[in-house]
Amino acid sequence: MKVPLRILQGFLEEDTPFGDLTSETLAQGIQCVAGIITHEEGIIAGVEEATDLFSSLDLAVRPQVQDGTWSPPETRVLEIAGEAAKILLAERTVLNVMGRMSGIATMTRRLVDTVHAINPQCRIASTRKTAPGLRFLDKKAVMLGGGESHRFTLSDMILIKDNHLAFVPLEEAITRAKAQGPYRVIEVEVTTPLMAEEAVRLGAHVIMLDNMRPVEVAETLTLLENEGIRKMVIVEISGGITEENIQDYAVQAVDVISMGNLTHSVRSLNMSLEILDRE
Amino acid sequence: MKVPLRILQGFLEEDTPFGDLTSETLAQGIQCVAGIITHEEGIIAGVEEATDLFSSLDLAVRPQVQDGTWSPPETRVLEIAGEAAKILLAERTVLNVMGRMSGIATMTRRLVDTVHAINPQCRIASTRKTAPGLRFLDKKAVMLGGGESHRFTLSDMILIKDNHLAFVPLEEAITRAKAQGPYRVIEVEVTTPLMAEEAVRLGAHVIMLDNMRPVEVAETLTLLENEGIRKMVIVEISGGITEENIQDYAVQAVDVISMGNLTHSVRSLNMSLEILDRE
Amino acid sequence: MKVPLRILQGFLEEDTPFGDLTSETLAQGIQCVAGIITHEEGIIAGVEEATDLFSSLDLAVRPQVQDGTWSPPETRVLEIAGEAAKILLAERTVLNVMGRMSGIATMTRRLVDTVHAINPQCRIASTRKTAPGLRFLDKKAVMLGGGESHRFTLSDMILIKDNHLAFVPLEEAITRAKAQGPYRVIEVEVTTPLMAEEAVRLGAHVIMLDNMRPVEVAETLTLLENEGIRKMVIVEISGGITEENIQDYAVQAVDVISMGNLTHSVRSLNMSLEILDRE
Amino acid sequence: MKVPLRILQGFLEEDTPFGDLTSETLAQGIQCVAGIITHEEGIIAGVEEATDLFSSLDLAVRPQVQDGTWSPPETRVLEIAGEAAKILLAERTVLNVMGRMSGIATMTRRLVDTVHAINPQCRIASTRKTAPGLRFLDKKAVMLGGGESHRFTLSDMILIKDNHLAFVPLEEAITRAKAQGPYRVIEVEVTTPLMAEEAVRLGAHVIMLDNMRPVEVAETLTLLENEGIRKMVIVEISGGITEENIQDYAVQAVDVISMGNLTHSVRSLNMSLEILDRE
Amino acid sequence: MKVPLRILQGFLEEDTPFGDLTSETLAQGIQCVAGIITHEEGIIAGVEEATDLFSSLDLAVRPQVQDGTWSPPETRVLEIAGEAAKILLAERTVLNVMGRMSGIATMTRRLVDTVHAINPQCRIASTRKTAPGLRFLDKKAVMLGGGESHRFTLSDMILIKDNHLAFVPLEEAITRAKAQGPYRVIEVEVTTPLMAEEAVRLGAHVIMLDNMRPVEVAETLTLLENEGIRKMVIVEISGGITEENIQDYAVQAVDVISMGNLTHSVRSLNMSLEILDRE
Amino acid sequence: MKVPLRILQGFLEEDTPFGDLTSETLAQGIQCVAGIITHEEGIIAGVEEATDLFSSLDLAVRPQVQDGTWSPPETRVLEIAGEAAKILLAERTVLNVMGRMSGIATMTRRLVDTVHAINPQCRIASTRKTAPGLRFLDKKAVMLGGGESHRFTLSDMILIKDNHLAFVPLEEAITRAKAQGPYRVIEVEVTTPLMAEEAVRLGAHVIMLDNMRPVEVAETLTLLENEGIRKMVIVEISGGITEENIQDYAVQAVDVISMGNLTHSVRSLNMSLEILDRE
Repeated sequence: MKVPLRILQGFLEEDTPFGDLTSETLAQGIQCVAGIITHEEGIIAGVEEATDLFSSLDLAVRPQVQDGTWSPPETRVLEIAGEAAKILLAERTVLNVMGRMSGIATMTRRLVDTVHAINPQCRIASTRKTAPGLRFLDKKAVMLGGGESHRFTLSDMILIKDNHLAFVPLEEAITRAKAQGPYRVIEVEVTTPLMAEEAVRLGAHVIMLDNMRPVEVAETLTLLENEGIRKMVIVEISGGITEENIQDYAVQAVDVISMGNLTHSVRSLNMSLEILDRE
Repeated sequence: MKVPLRILQGFLEEDTPFGDLTSETLAQGIQCVAGIITHEEGIIAGVEEATDLFSSLDLAVRPQVQDGTWSPPETRVLEIAGEAAKILLAERTVLNVMGRMSGIATMTRRLVDTVHAINPQCRIASTRKTAPGLRFLDKKAVMLGGGESHRFTLSDMILIKDNHLAFVPLEEAITRAKAQGPYRVIEVEVTTPLMAEEAVRLGAHVIMLDNMRPVEVAETLTLLENEGIRKMVIVEISGGITEENIQDYAVQAVDVISMGNLTHSVRSLNMSLEILDRE
Repeated sequence: MKVPLRILQGFLEEDTPFGDLTSETLAQGIQCVAGIITHEEGIIAGVEEATDLFSSLDLAVRPQVQDGTWSPPETRVLEIAGEAAKILLAERTVLNVMGRMSGIATMTRRLVDTVHAINPQCRIASTRKTAPGLRFLDKKAVMLGGGESHRFTLSDMILIKDNHLAFVPLEEAITRAKAQGPYRVIEVEVTTPLMAEEAVRLGAHVIMLDNMRPVEVAETLTLLENEGIRKMVIVEISGGITEENIQDYAVQAVDVISMGNLTHSVRSLNMSLEILDRE
Repeated sequence: MKVPLRILQGFLEEDTPFGDLTSETLAQGIQCVAGIITHEEGIIAGVEEATDLFSSLDLAVRPQVQDGTWSPPETRVLEIAGEAAKILLAERTVLNVMGRMSGIATMTRRLVDTVHAINPQCRIASTRKTAPGLRFLDKKAVMLGGGESHRFTLSDMILIKDNHLAFVPLEEAITRAKAQGPYRVIEVEVTTPLMAEEAVRLGAHVIMLDNMRPVEVAETLTLLENEGIRKMVIVEISGGITEENIQDYAVQAVDVISMGNLTHSVRSLNMSLEILDRE
Repeated sequence: MKVPLRILQGFLEEDTPFGDLTSETLAQGIQCVAGIITHEEGIIAGVEEATDLFSSLDLAVRPQVQDGTWSPPETRVLEIAGEAAKILLAERTVLNVMGRMSGIATMTRRLVDTVHAINPQCRIASTRKTAPGLRFLDKKAVMLGGGESHRFTLSDMILIKDNHLAFVPLEEAITRAKAQGPYRVIEVEVTTPLMAEEAVRLGAHVIMLDNMRPVEVAETLTLLENEGIRKMVIVEISGGITEENIQDYAVQAVDVISMGNLTHSVRSLNMSLEILDRE
Repeated sequence: MKVPLRILQGFLEEDTPFGDLTSETLAQGIQCVAGIITHEEGIIAGVEEATDLFSSLDLAVRPQVQDGTWSPPETRVLEIAGEAAKILLAERTVLNVMGRMSGIATMTRRLVDTVHAINPQCRIASTRKTAPGLRFLDKKAVMLGGGESHRFTLSDMILIKDNHLAFVPLEEAITRAKAQGPYRVIEVEVTTPLMAEEAVRLGAHVIMLDNMRPVEVAETLTLLENEGIRKMVIVEISGGITEENIQDYAVQAVDVISMGNLTHSVRSLNMSLEILDRE
């Protein structure tokens, strides 16, 4: 899963509609070696994208760390050699890509680790609540952090939500969804244990327990177990789950915890580009 | 400053490469009224973009709140009327735009208010550390929150940073920058009081005190005052300033505090689309 | 599922890089009413696209037939009123879109009807063998004809084919696929009854019997029935199925017949644009 | 005439909006050699496009057959070496391009051969009835098959059709067309021998006998001969000509036979990508 | 021949990557009427483009002058009503389009008039020496001025120039060109009377006398007349013809004078946008 | 400041929508060396763009002259080696780019030299009156000629013009502009000496004396000197300044002379591509 170079070059053009006034004035014709250095620990992501973008400017790139690996602070993740003005031209664009992707990957990994310590089968999934236009980067970063992409888009699978059930009763909705054929997973958002049971009986592949407190999740799982239908379905929980309360949810025997804040409320990983050597 | 419709439609196409499997199955041909409702207080941003995108789908849009205004939780910021399948098609795209923009605007306003309570002349500025591809949206949101856009791109103004001074001494750098003509502001990143003084004497329009602790900022300002050159320059501080420590900086008589985290570490404002009425 | 207007306008620009030399010379400023008329029976598709494109040229469009309906020859499917030069500008582009889409929809419907007469539960599916760049149009046309879209793209679901099994044994392949999470259907291409059985036991959601003769299909189904695992899987057949031999396959108790020729070997439905009235 | 790489990459992006879930899971990091193999005889086309697209993914490509040459079934037309995941990523896109182009070239060549056996001076031409958005590919394929491109677009030449003559009488139409200057060929669609004669006398460079039966074509040619004006014009016939009846037309002394079905009703040439060797 | 709105909006986006800092600060929310006023006489062109662009910003546009008409200085060619900030946003983009197009149209008309006063049959043609990316606008402007478009692109017709004849002798070149079929005009660039004669005898449709002095043109025409082949060909002259010496060429009995400077050395027509009324 | 290759390739595609009919027929498979040769003296610009475009076609490019250097007539500025058909494909596109850029650079240099002979401190600046879509090329060419870019776009700086002052009085306008923050230069267009004085006192960084005669310029400068505020502001003059009268303005002690005709009324530098050698 590789971001098309065209997209990365578009990011660069956004930052340089008429070139880089400063570096063209001060750094043209100078050869140097630079490094991208982290300033906090985290999962590194975006090395592939950085490599592609710097390479397209005729710079030599030497990745020092692979995408998806944990790095301590002050790690040199990438070295770039070539004309200083070109390196500085792309500096901020690359850091914005890598910082965001690494921030997403790092938070994902932290949550995955937290949850797996309690419940090794449970997965962490992202949602479609990404930055607009950055779906590809955001989903890739989640996966590099060990998370699940869930739906990429509205065209991937069927997810029946409250806003659909405002128009069509649950049974009819699932019937119509199934009539679309066997190639799409069908998920239903449910709000009560009984609704969960109904959705499973109607053949949903996945049920999403929406905004339930841990006790309600437990109650729902118990009902499904008691009815002997727990194994027929994937149980996902979503809504209101944060880094603070995720442990309360992880103790539940759910299959997936999905979280919009993995991608809609990102903290970039702190890193910078530094000149290492001037030729 | 209005995001071109082409860009917004691109966001929608990203989410619907082959349409919306669920809503086409369940909500086609149904007329309804929906609302975008906030679930926490904040500054609303993105109403103009939401209006343009929904309108392009032949939906009737009635904004209830103007961009840039503070709203309590559970405010209905926008009403949309028309075919349910079209409303749901754009729901997530619009929420992703509005959530991010409102999140940025809200954090900006909170910091502006904090700083102004202490130092009413001091401005809050964003940087180029935006999400890649979303510079326009992010900068607009900062401005709606009462912040300063600072540089949009590398083509706007000249900002001489440590990575430039690695190649060219300060005096030569400023001389060359000035030779580019009078239409661009020249800013210099400085790390010590003496370097600040030098930059001012050489004619920098703005100096950015980079990663200084409050005491160093104070020391620098005192030096400039004592030398009688404080009024000749705009003093910006940047680096390491957070919501937690911003008050320590705001007490300093600086002109601008610039913060990358306004745009690189955004928390989306919580809002959702709800079906209000079915015709 | 609506083709973005941007795409349709791109088709028009392809045909008119420097305008329409003939109609600008002969039909400018003349008001008329024109009709799109079929010259053979078939399922009409592309009315929505034709309407959008003509409308974008400020022409009045009155669809006479809905997408997806069967029409006898010499049906007037659409009326357009406005400046003759504009109607003629878009004539060929619209006919190329509608002719192709209607041709696909018609062939799909004919095959669906043939199969359903024998086996009402069996579905007809298209593949990714569409015209390059026309995936959206081609898949939409299949669906209007009553067929199944199957995968839209390589990002939708997992389909393990011979070219993958050249590198990874079946069991490991399915295990790795399942480790990607629960949101994607997993299909495996199989070439023998025993391989089919193995894939089902390993948990494939769909098996595709590749290039089997009817007797081999029967043998495979019998094996699955005998082993009591037929109901655990969707059975798709693909490869070498044509309009001529499809009945031999339809008598088998398979769930889906998928056919590349629905979209890679299209015969356009014959239709033309005629001037109905000059104002 | 080379399809811009940008276009080919767009075809690939259409098929991989979020990467190739299967090959990324099963074929990453594996080096192999693959071949594109035909399964029926035909004229090969699209080798240049396949080479450009595979090369852009850093794969080594070795064409074995030149575009435009006839190949027996089971010919290896192209070899590709490199990472398996990248080869499989582009497999379907390349096959869709080559299959369509080769299908068009093959049918064109077959018709050219049929016609030339009877009438070696007569040319086969395509029309603007191509797949929308694929004009370039389709026209190039026709030419590789030995056919004539005819008009590329509405901006190339002037073709006065019945829909224009609905507004302007023939004489005025040709007069106005000639007033557009000497750089465009002027063709007129005619439906009777007398109209053909009139168009020639008025100075049309080409006349297209539209939907005439062979006997009517003969009658028209005789009239032109008798009037001594046959040599003043190119005679093209079009409409209702198929592979079945083309011989009846080829015996006529016409200059060009143009056929929409060369490009609007294409049967892809059957070919596939196979793994030849694993390193 | 209408410039796609997408292109015009691209021109506007080029000028406003982050909005219009000045007018957003000073002219938002103010309603006004503005006019585009010429400051010298000339042929007006670009009214259609201006209308389309202003209209796309929800402004009311009232053209006062039709494209292609002569206007005295201080003519109000267009009125626009609506929000001042929107009018001023597009002001410069529209003036740049109209100024260039009107400049081209005006110079073309002046030359056409000069030539027609001497030789009413002789046409003035532009070449492919347009501004890169502005071929459409430039050619349209020439035609509005009464000139001929000549080739739009390298795909329109065949023009055999010295750089081709460096590789292939004239006879072979024309033979190969004719083998491309009857739908393209074939023009040959010639440098001597004898070469002109040869090209005509070989069947060139147009000959371009390249960089000949008037006396050489006369000599060539005489030779063709004497050989009785003048009527078989269109004679175009090109190279070194300017506003100053065009009369010396116009007295020659040539069919077309083509001039690169019509489009490569344009003087914009002087016009400006003025606020007429504030509501 | 480097034009993105994507843009240059777009220029080439504009000229070759369906390839180059002539060179594909006559120059395919032939290796040669060609040169771009000037036919008049001037400043060369566009070498970087020519190099990038030819290189992208797999041609070997050897620049002989650097962008921005003065060249006598008949200079070989660039050599290209490779397939003749590819060189000829891009010939006109490259010449259109280089001819325009060199024409702009040459006129700029001539004016800079004229002005500097009189007033070595005075700068020559371009405006936003560029060809639409060619802002980047035009501004780069001006800078290569020794001129000043001035504003690139409406987003760079604030320029308060008469059309703004129609709505807001000068004092309020400057106050509002200053409230936008310290990162943008503020310029005001003034029409009288008193208005100039007022703008300076209100804090404009630059004043543009609009359409003043030399005597009025002198009067304004004298007033500013007498009031002791001349040094507080950059003085730019604009409007009505031409190559003919620029000396009358250059004698004035102004800082910048800005001229729209540098970019809106360009005369291309005469150059051509010639075949130097055939391998």
